[in-house]
Amino acid sequence: MLDHLGVAVRSIAEARRFYETLGIRVGGEETVEYEKVKTAMLLLGESRIELLEATEEDSVIGRFLARRGEGLHHVALRMEDVDTVFRRLKEQGVRLASEEVREGAGGHRYFFVHPTSTGGVLVEIVGR
Amino acid sequence: MLDHLGVAVRSIAEARRFYETLGIRVGGEETVEYEKVKTAMLLLGESRIELLEATEEDSVIGRFLARRGEGLHHVALRMEDVDTVFRRLKEQGVRLASEEVREGAGGHRYFFVHPTSTGGVLVEIVGR
Repeated sequence: MLDHLGVAVRSIAEARRFYETLGIRVGGEETVEYEKVKTAMLLLGESRIELLEATEEDSVIGRFLARRGEGLHHVALRMEDVDTVFRRLKEQGVRLASEEVREGAGGHRYFFVHPTSTGGVLVEIVGR
Repeated sequence: MLDHLGVAVRSIAEARRFYETLGIRVGGEETVEYEKVKTAMLLLGESRIELLEATEEDSVIGRFLARRGEGLHHVALRMEDVDTVFRRLKEQGVRLASEEVREGAGGHRYFFVHPTSTGGVLVEIVGR
């Protein structure tokens, strides 16, 4: 299923105003120090939109904003067995954007697929 | 809730291969003559990814692909009362990308919000 969209924004305070006007509930803001990013979650049924604001220019989201401006950064799909999916895609020669499956702060496993393989979208495959 | 993502692709045949490798079910392909677009739906829980391939270069998706390449075209949020939402956003001076609420083929009402108001994403508000 569609877990979340990551959207890079210059200002969470400004972007969340629009979504709140729509009546969408916004979860707590959080700063992820090692990724130099501040996040806020828009709760949309079983999916979410994750607003991503860089806390430093020299960070993944900071560089993305400098290069491309605001907009979609990635689409995350939730799958049962991330390691099997990783292996299967690798075998089929799909271009990946991660060298290996990593483990996130919450213990979920994840990796990224390169946009050239997916129709132009950076796709994150994330486990439960 | 998050109804669907519209992703502009050069070739549905090629893009769907990747999503099928993930085990994602793809609904029937459809051609919408008046929008000069072929579509295929990836079924992802209560949301969908709609792959959009232009049938002519001189079309919304054809021009998008020429200008930006493959990638996310729009994010559609499903709301209860589209006309009220339209009026409320207009009153608050949110920049919209539609002059009025329109009615789609299935009878659902919809309009678009300009990316400058939403964090860089073309947002479609769609009714039931």
